[in-house]
Amino acid sequence: MDFDWLLSEPLPAGVPRQRVLYQRLRAAILSARLPAGTALPASRSLAAALGIARNTVLFAYEQLVAEGCLVADRQGTRVARLPVRAEPRAAARHRTGAALHLSARAATALPPEPVRDAQALPFSPGVPDFGAFPFRAWRACLERTWREVGWRQLGYAAHGGDPRLRAALAGHLGSVRGLAVDAAQIVITSGTQAALDLCARLLADHGDTVWAENPGYLAARVAFGLAGLTVHDVAVDGEGLAPTADDWRAHPPRLVMVTPSHQYPTGRVMSLARRLALIERARLAGAWIVEDDYDSEFRRGGPAPPALFGLQADAPVVYVGTFSKTMYPGLRLGYLVLPQAIAADFARAAVLATRAGQGIEQHALADFIHRGHYTAHLRRMRVRYSSRQAALRDALQRAFGPGLVLSGGEAGLHLVMWLPAGTPDIAVAQQAAQMGLGVRALSAYARPPVSCNGLVLGYGNLDVDAVAGAVARLKQAAERAGAGSDGLLRSPTG
Amino acid sequence: MDFDWLLSEPLPAGVPRQRVLYQRLRAAILSARLPAGTALPASRSLAAALGIARNTVLFAYEQLVAEGCLVADRQGTRVARLPVRAEPRAAARHRTGAALHLSARAATALPPEPVRDAQALPFSPGVPDFGAFPFRAWRACLERTWREVGWRQLGYAAHGGDPRLRAALAGHLGSVRGLAVDAAQIVITSGTQAALDLCARLLADHGDTVWAENPGYLAARVAFGLAGLTVHDVAVDGEGLAPTADDWRAHPPRLVMVTPSHQYPTGRVMSLARRLALIERARLAGAWIVEDDYDSEFRRGGPAPPALFGLQADAPVVYVGTFSKTMYPGLRLGYLVLPQAIAADFARAAVLATRAGQGIEQHALADFIHRGHYTAHLRRMRVRYSSRQAALRDALQRAFGPGLVLSGGEAGLHLVMWLPAGTPDIAVAQQAAQMGLGVRALSAYARPPVSCNGLVLGYGNLDVDAVAGAVARLKQAAERAGAGSDGLLRSPTG
Repeated sequence: MDFDWLLSEPLPAGVPRQRVLYQRLRAAILSARLPAGTALPASRSLAAALGIARNTVLFAYEQLVAEGCLVADRQGTRVARLPVRAEPRAAARHRTGAALHLSARAATALPPEPVRDAQALPFSPGVPDFGAFPFRAWRACLERTWREVGWRQLGYAAHGGDPRLRAALAGHLGSVRGLAVDAAQIVITSGTQAALDLCARLLADHGDTVWAENPGYLAARVAFGLAGLTVHDVAVDGEGLAPTADDWRAHPPRLVMVTPSHQYPTGRVMSLARRLALIERARLAGAWIVEDDYDSEFRRGGPAPPALFGLQADAPVVYVGTFSKTMYPGLRLGYLVLPQAIAADFARAAVLATRAGQGIEQHALADFIHRGHYTAHLRRMRVRYSSRQAALRDALQRAFGPGLVLSGGEAGLHLVMWLPAGTPDIAVAQQAAQMGLGVRALSAYARPPVSCNGLVLGYGNLDVDAVAGAVARLKQAAERAGAGSDGLLRSPTG
Repeated sequence: MDFDWLLSEPLPAGVPRQRVLYQRLRAAILSARLPAGTALPASRSLAAALGIARNTVLFAYEQLVAEGCLVADRQGTRVARLPVRAEPRAAARHRTGAALHLSARAATALPPEPVRDAQALPFSPGVPDFGAFPFRAWRACLERTWREVGWRQLGYAAHGGDPRLRAALAGHLGSVRGLAVDAAQIVITSGTQAALDLCARLLADHGDTVWAENPGYLAARVAFGLAGLTVHDVAVDGEGLAPTADDWRAHPPRLVMVTPSHQYPTGRVMSLARRLALIERARLAGAWIVEDDYDSEFRRGGPAPPALFGLQADAPVVYVGTFSKTMYPGLRLGYLVLPQAIAADFARAAVLATRAGQGIEQHALADFIHRGHYTAHLRRMRVRYSSRQAALRDALQRAFGPGLVLSGGEAGLHLVMWLPAGTPDIAVAQQAAQMGLGVRALSAYARPPVSCNGLVLGYGNLDVDAVAGAVARLKQAAERAGAGSDGLLRSPTG
């Protein structure tokens, strides 16, 4: 039998010859090109025939014997009897084809649009000002942690998260958000998405209904869909989530997802009356409210309205917070605040469900909060984001004239600019994307029958000096999308 | 109306008086102690009555008006009409009680045992040697990343993970594990648990059957259960997963979870024949194999057997790897390697499902691999773990005599010490826990009808010098659990 083919094809760069020989022999055995029982030449003869060192052949033979591809005994080295069959590659692919696809829930839960990498472009929503991040203070906390506690923080996280971080957070939420919570009610997560994933699986069962705001936060829908929940859309009005009697009767929820302090994306603030009514109805329906306290940190003009969590004793509310905007998204730390009644069970379940870690970062963040860096940073950023919003409002006013309709300025890092019906937001957003802007179409967040038409303009990472240029480009995009600056704003809707 | 009660209870420490006044007024309004329409005293009179500054009262009134608790007009300040009702707190709690519990799937997927925080005790399984971790090199990579790429790494992770890390990993898996994979086939995850969560949701639907090894890795069962899959236990024998014809016929799987290179917890290595047969059967069944290549990095006595992934072209195999043992668990970085046919779809779905980040750590890890630190560390640790295992074997032999039966030494960070039927492993493990040992009972990983009796002895974090002392304590624990050293090993099973 001829074995020249083993080394006749060009050798891949950077792979030792003995490894190539091993790989090619193995492939030939597993494809039945070398059938079971085939006698291989003695290592010395094969080495001579191929013009290589005997050790190279020995290495390959030994490894293949160890793996069970070859059998070596006194009669020599033979191909082992293995469950392989000779068939063209295409046939094998065909047989597998049926299985090589994602699950049905992946297909339905995921939006059909291509996914763009999150980028920090002008107007990209939800991007904080990276340049203003206190790198020096944060890195000092990280370095102190590595130095002082080092390897003790390298394992999995403690139950519910680092005790110091939970305590620091309980203090912070008490003084800044008015929440009287104990550290034991806090579970550290790797961000909002992980928190929603946990709520979907630990608080609801397959087939349960979850209410999502319409328009609303798309990634929450993905989490709920992948957890097997039925997403029911509930419209949002000027006071926040506005469920009808029919919503309560025909689609009783197990979970109600809301962003009351700054509805995403419309930026509306849920009124106190609406908050109290929602808690009361949720109690009666046996539903959990998942309160994503989105953007409550960056309020303008007065304190944030009280969170649903803690408005009433024993309210069925779970509070979700994140450090993605106040620190940076890549940190991947967030938290859940839970009612006393389920806090211990939830923390125990979360530990098994997620195997959390990031002990170094958790410890450093606790340090960062304790030393006052966190509140100082929030205070600075509140001022900074306010002036960015003011500059953006001015520039938009100058560019688009008196018909301009803006909303969502009470908090957060974005404004909504409403468009008249004749100027489709999708077209403007597409034009803007081509011009390097991260503006999003409001309608992309809505499901029928709700329709809305506007632009979500993030200003978190938009320097005051860059505002005028970005707005000029936005105006160009709107014009190219078929609307003159007059037509654009003649009849605002929403 | 008398308002003395507002400040008659002691003030909580560290909370400004204006905030206390605000909180107590709000609580009174929300509990209907102050019913709708109640006229509040003018700020000046209330301040005088309570003996505090008028500004303190004004602050509270203004905030409550802003929130909608109070209404202010020319007639003065009154309590707003809100959907609250006066009722004893206990009644409200009773009405909510029905909803304040976890989901049914949380209750069934989670084991009933209390969850201990993962600790690095002698014999704790799966704990690497923290002391030998190359802190200096790793911190240098982290610091370089902060210095060089800083804020550009602070956002969400790119599609599938940091491109440099995916490329570095593809190279590493090619040279060390013999996998010919492209960076585009790799998706970075926040560890094995996150990878299994993704597989459960993106590759299988609610009600689908997943095969779990019996005995097997408990946290995988939690991930599958919470994703709504039906877990079917398949027994493991000396060659790894050993499905029967009945398993295939009566419980056809959509997912098959295996740890072929070092079965967890028995430490057995799946034979090549078994690997090929499993792929062949999975193809026919339209099933995905999830290959957790657990512990393949720390082989002793020869190279690791080839991974299922890449054994055959287009095999329905998804490969799971982690940096938890090779770096440290708290890093929370792992990865999936996917067949070409689904890699792009999977990566896109993963981005929406998880919102990954950790850009700094991902970039630093790519650097750590590129500079050769990673393979050097693995090489050092392979030697170190080998000598720890040898020391442990010797000490066990001396302590327990010639009847000792050990398995699982070919790879990884733990040995299994089998016990005779008369010495229940649970009792020994409980005694050992009281003596500060992290040994686990093998039977805790098994489900009926499989029964096994043994101890899982982790040695990853057990210094050679500490082996003798730990084994002496283990022997004491076994004796206290009712077995003399003779009885313990007279009739080994398994």
